[in-house]
Amino acid sequence: MLVVMKKGATEENIQAAVNSIEKRGYEARPIPGGDRVSIGILHNKGSVDAAHFMGLEGVKEVIAVTKPYKLVSREIKPEKTVIKVGNAVFGDGTLPVISGPCAVESQEQVIEIARAVKAAGAQVFRGGAFKPRTSPYSFQGHGVKGLEFLAKAREETGLPFATEVMDIENFPAVEEHADIVQIGTRNMQNFSLLKRAGKSFRPIILKRGMSATLQEWLMAAEYIMEEGNPNVILCERGVRTFVRHSRNTLDLSVIPAAKKETHLPLIVDPSHAAGVRDQVIPLALASAAIGADGVMIEVHHKPEEAMSDGAQSLYPDQFADLMKKMTAIHALAGQGS
Amino acid sequence: MLVVMKKGATEENIQAAVNSIEKRGYEARPIPGGDRVSIGILHNKGSVDAAHFMGLEGVKEVIAVTKPYKLVSREIKPEKTVIKVGNAVFGDGTLPVISGPCAVESQEQVIEIARAVKAAGAQVFRGGAFKPRTSPYSFQGHGVKGLEFLAKAREETGLPFATEVMDIENFPAVEEHADIVQIGTRNMQNFSLLKRAGKSFRPIILKRGMSATLQEWLMAAEYIMEEGNPNVILCERGVRTFVRHSRNTLDLSVIPAAKKETHLPLIVDPSHAAGVRDQVIPLALASAAIGADGVMIEVHHKPEEAMSDGAQSLYPDQFADLMKKMTAIHALAGQGS
Amino acid sequence: MLVVMKKGATEENIQAAVNSIEKRGYEARPIPGGDRVSIGILHNKGSVDAAHFMGLEGVKEVIAVTKPYKLVSREIKPEKTVIKVGNAVFGDGTLPVISGPCAVESQEQVIEIARAVKAAGAQVFRGGAFKPRTSPYSFQGHGVKGLEFLAKAREETGLPFATEVMDIENFPAVEEHADIVQIGTRNMQNFSLLKRAGKSFRPIILKRGMSATLQEWLMAAEYIMEEGNPNVILCERGVRTFVRHSRNTLDLSVIPAAKKETHLPLIVDPSHAAGVRDQVIPLALASAAIGADGVMIEVHHKPEEAMSDGAQSLYPDQFADLMKKMTAIHALAGQGS
Amino acid sequence: MLVVMKKGATEENIQAAVNSIEKRGYEARPIPGGDRVSIGILHNKGSVDAAHFMGLEGVKEVIAVTKPYKLVSREIKPEKTVIKVGNAVFGDGTLPVISGPCAVESQEQVIEIARAVKAAGAQVFRGGAFKPRTSPYSFQGHGVKGLEFLAKAREETGLPFATEVMDIENFPAVEEHADIVQIGTRNMQNFSLLKRAGKSFRPIILKRGMSATLQEWLMAAEYIMEEGNPNVILCERGVRTFVRHSRNTLDLSVIPAAKKETHLPLIVDPSHAAGVRDQVIPLALASAAIGADGVMIEVHHKPEEAMSDGAQSLYPDQFADLMKKMTAIHALAGQGS
Repeated sequence: MLVVMKKGATEENIQAAVNSIEKRGYEARPIPGGDRVSIGILHNKGSVDAAHFMGLEGVKEVIAVTKPYKLVSREIKPEKTVIKVGNAVFGDGTLPVISGPCAVESQEQVIEIARAVKAAGAQVFRGGAFKPRTSPYSFQGHGVKGLEFLAKAREETGLPFATEVMDIENFPAVEEHADIVQIGTRNMQNFSLLKRAGKSFRPIILKRGMSATLQEWLMAAEYIMEEGNPNVILCERGVRTFVRHSRNTLDLSVIPAAKKETHLPLIVDPSHAAGVRDQVIPLALASAAIGADGVMIEVHHKPEEAMSDGAQSLYPDQFADLMKKMTAIHALAGQGS
Repeated sequence: MLVVMKKGATEENIQAAVNSIEKRGYEARPIPGGDRVSIGILHNKGSVDAAHFMGLEGVKEVIAVTKPYKLVSREIKPEKTVIKVGNAVFGDGTLPVISGPCAVESQEQVIEIARAVKAAGAQVFRGGAFKPRTSPYSFQGHGVKGLEFLAKAREETGLPFATEVMDIENFPAVEEHADIVQIGTRNMQNFSLLKRAGKSFRPIILKRGMSATLQEWLMAAEYIMEEGNPNVILCERGVRTFVRHSRNTLDLSVIPAAKKETHLPLIVDPSHAAGVRDQVIPLALASAAIGADGVMIEVHHKPEEAMSDGAQSLYPDQFADLMKKMTAIHALAGQGS
Repeated sequence: MLVVMKKGATEENIQAAVNSIEKRGYEARPIPGGDRVSIGILHNKGSVDAAHFMGLEGVKEVIAVTKPYKLVSREIKPEKTVIKVGNAVFGDGTLPVISGPCAVESQEQVIEIARAVKAAGAQVFRGGAFKPRTSPYSFQGHGVKGLEFLAKAREETGLPFATEVMDIENFPAVEEHADIVQIGTRNMQNFSLLKRAGKSFRPIILKRGMSATLQEWLMAAEYIMEEGNPNVILCERGVRTFVRHSRNTLDLSVIPAAKKETHLPLIVDPSHAAGVRDQVIPLALASAAIGADGVMIEVHHKPEEAMSDGAQSLYPDQFADLMKKMTAIHALAGQGS
Repeated sequence: MLVVMKKGATEENIQAAVNSIEKRGYEARPIPGGDRVSIGILHNKGSVDAAHFMGLEGVKEVIAVTKPYKLVSREIKPEKTVIKVGNAVFGDGTLPVISGPCAVESQEQVIEIARAVKAAGAQVFRGGAFKPRTSPYSFQGHGVKGLEFLAKAREETGLPFATEVMDIENFPAVEEHADIVQIGTRNMQNFSLLKRAGKSFRPIILKRGMSATLQEWLMAAEYIMEEGNPNVILCERGVRTFVRHSRNTLDLSVIPAAKKETHLPLIVDPSHAAGVRDQVIPLALASAAIGADGVMIEVHHKPEEAMSDGAQSLYPDQFADLMKKMTAIHALAGQGS
């Protein structure tokens, strides 16, 4: 932490800032700069709250140096976290693919799509049983019945599945059925839910919030790890910007940036970012090229009849073609870990 | 809903789109434009999901016309909703002020601040017992004990209080003690929590999500109303943008824009948007001028020792001075309802 | 400047960074932190380019401490810059208002509107002769003829006028006729134009770029001042965000934030931010409350027939009413300087 | 264009809107919807200005249907524009690479780097002679002398070069020396410069503005084409968002989205978006995968001594390795045109 004093700050101001730092148990070291004095806070354990010093007389700004995260940090654990689910391995340099429909609609639907994505090479199935919808009047998912449909599809195909949990109430049911529990973008900072996920025995997919900074996202993962669950898969799914030609702006730069900060696996969901099929395919190829630890793609056997997000779902044969290209590109790019 | 066809769309494409619309039970009417044909969807009840038609052959875009919200809409209920809590009235053209510390720290602290803000003219007290914090290592609030401190402060001063609820588990406790239940910005689309709030007998303050559009915010309120609770107070608290000189960008334009769409009262929280005291005061004055139905301001008797957000908390005498100015400006601006 | 080393940086890495700093003529001082070493760059004149040190082995980040601007800085010139144009005074604690149509359409139009806004109390007239338009097919303004219409309106009413310049070619003509030369939002970083403005004998209104940070905006003003023109008026006009209910998001927080950094006068243009009349009025009142050094408002006598931006132009009687309220609110808020 | 009436709009309001539409020479057709009436504007030539109808009594919103661009539109010219410069072909499905240093520093520097990038397979050289810099105190480029250095490097290596023009004054000199003239992100809506570029006999690289929508970007290209120059190469280089882990957010989704709208070639500059070398490489691979018509990469033989943007410049051997991967990935992705 660096407390930067104003140009005209008096000796008194500087001393008061030093006292305030020391009163909180830190060591303060004034550093004379070109135009002004800054005060370094030394030998602190963990991060210091900038707000304590921001309102003091003569203080211009307070700059954080130490990052506030610990367990997720690559500085603390340099080797990559590897998470295995069925035949999928996240974090070992391969590119496992999670695929399936946006929403679970019927037993037949999930079995049919699960077979198709398995045939194309997907290692994990996905489908929403509890659906977070902007409108209370939209289809909210089949709930526990949907979980059972998914379990049945697993029985038929051997594919493990991931599905979203929306609240603590339904956590036990989701955890019991699913192989991977997903926390959605709107719940990235639902801290009660994060703590519950931290007590789960299942790996967690933590989607990035719509306007979360990398640091906030990692801190959300820290909540889960801090409660004892080390198996967190981070999933970039697009952020909200001024842009109108895609539903969200897929922020692929976060993959290399996050890899430097954390040992957790990082996957990409181009389907939700794009919102339309024609953008999903190129963005999926780009995700394979950038060195992600996995990709999540929505597929539907009859997209035009889908109950949710049909426009962004690929047809099974588009998906099969995409799988081949993604695998080849990922091998060429060669950026595992 | 308007389905816009590409310039080169064939008669066949157009007919297929018409069929797809009619198959879903709507009436389709083709409209020849300058360069292309659009197809209007007529006499639909409620909103239509654009995604159904976006991927069809020859379709260029799909444009929503009808807004998806009902109960919150001013078109359906033109008269303003008025919510009374103690002496505060939200929505009747007055400017009730909610004030208090960010976090409840001790019994003495809340009583002392409650007395100060009451003396300055605040009608509702506030304080966080359950604190949503970005870091699991930050102070998380005193929980139920904090609620009891707040209740005791109410006893001493007569001020009703508002406090945040973070999950369904603690909803009964919060609801029992607090006069107004607040849902925070990170939970604006925690739909399970919204549904629970819809069953509450308390008025709800619904803070706008960090990157929520006006429509998403209103739809979140619709979730609450749809479950039976008509008493929702919307609170603008700053949105996330590229800007770095303030913590968030207070979007005051949302007040007049939202007033045209909804009958629900709209209040502004400049403290969280600003992040620093020197910006809170001018933004609070601007909030009074823009015609808000209330303002929420953080006050602390010793900001430099606050356990949370001290830098944005006003000193009691700054607050007292601000109250006078806000009241006078609001009277002058004269935009109630 | 602070060069922050990675946790595992070796002594060798640190020494290499120190050498790199010293090779560029700065003084380096290593500062041991809680987890890592940072290296302060001391006694530098002016700002240091972070990029030089960002790619070095073992370096985690580079943090700027000293601000890069000089002439615009309040630390260098604490007293407010005061700019007088006719009866308007920008920067002395009053609230001069600049008003007129978006585009100059005819001689009659500008005279009629100039009379109306003068009667309502505006001190400066405005009107666009050269119009920056997103489309080459939109009306591009009357050019030099428009300047002559404006000069004639000044003759008739005594009101000085401000108008936009779009390029160096037309700078002499604009400068000759106008009392204040405006640089538009799209040209905020047209550095050649800024340098030309720096050689002008007229005061310059510098509109904030659509996505300019406060620092970039001040650096643009620094370009003008550096060439010798000290009379720069900064104008906030809304920034681009994800928001869709207003054309741009008026960032009122920039007013108090900028006032701490610079001595230059700061005005607000709510018309372009809002895009619709119903938002202009409340945002103008908020601008008066927040302590701006002036406000710029579009007015048209027949908005529904305006050639440009009619929807955001006020009717003359709306403007007259607004003027009274703004003046009273500004007096109450009392934040001059 | 669709004029949407409020739910409670009277017959009179509707008739007034119809009259207003017809007075401007368009045909109006009322369309009764579920809850409200909308009025279609039919058979208009070109786009209609929404602002004309937005302020009318009873009008809720005005929705554009027809896109405002013509010459750049793929609907008007379906076949891809192909631009040849030396051995580089933009728009034919290949992936030409433009490479070189950010700034021209000396004759030796440009020759050395030009040789290196040519050896690695780049087809076009780049280097800045006129540099747009945020600060007036930063190195502003060698100007015309820099152009001569670049011309000499072309002589030595046979590589054509691209360089930025910042104003009309220097356009003739840039145009005379350079093979491709670049308009930078800060000048994307410098309409005077765009018009001048439209009269040039050189191909133009038009960088996307920092917060430009796809439509604004295409309209800027329309300015150039409208003046007679059909050879415009669009270059995505990152947009400004709330994100802080990269300098800008590279918006790769714009490539597939823009390809549907325009026939002009689309290239990507990952160097400026990333700001740091470690992100440039993965983003460049992603750009190759997404189907761009070219990539622009900064390379410097001694990045740590570069006068501008050293941290984002690749070392020549990194670049050579990247070239191989990009070429292979582009071939695999197979999305030319």
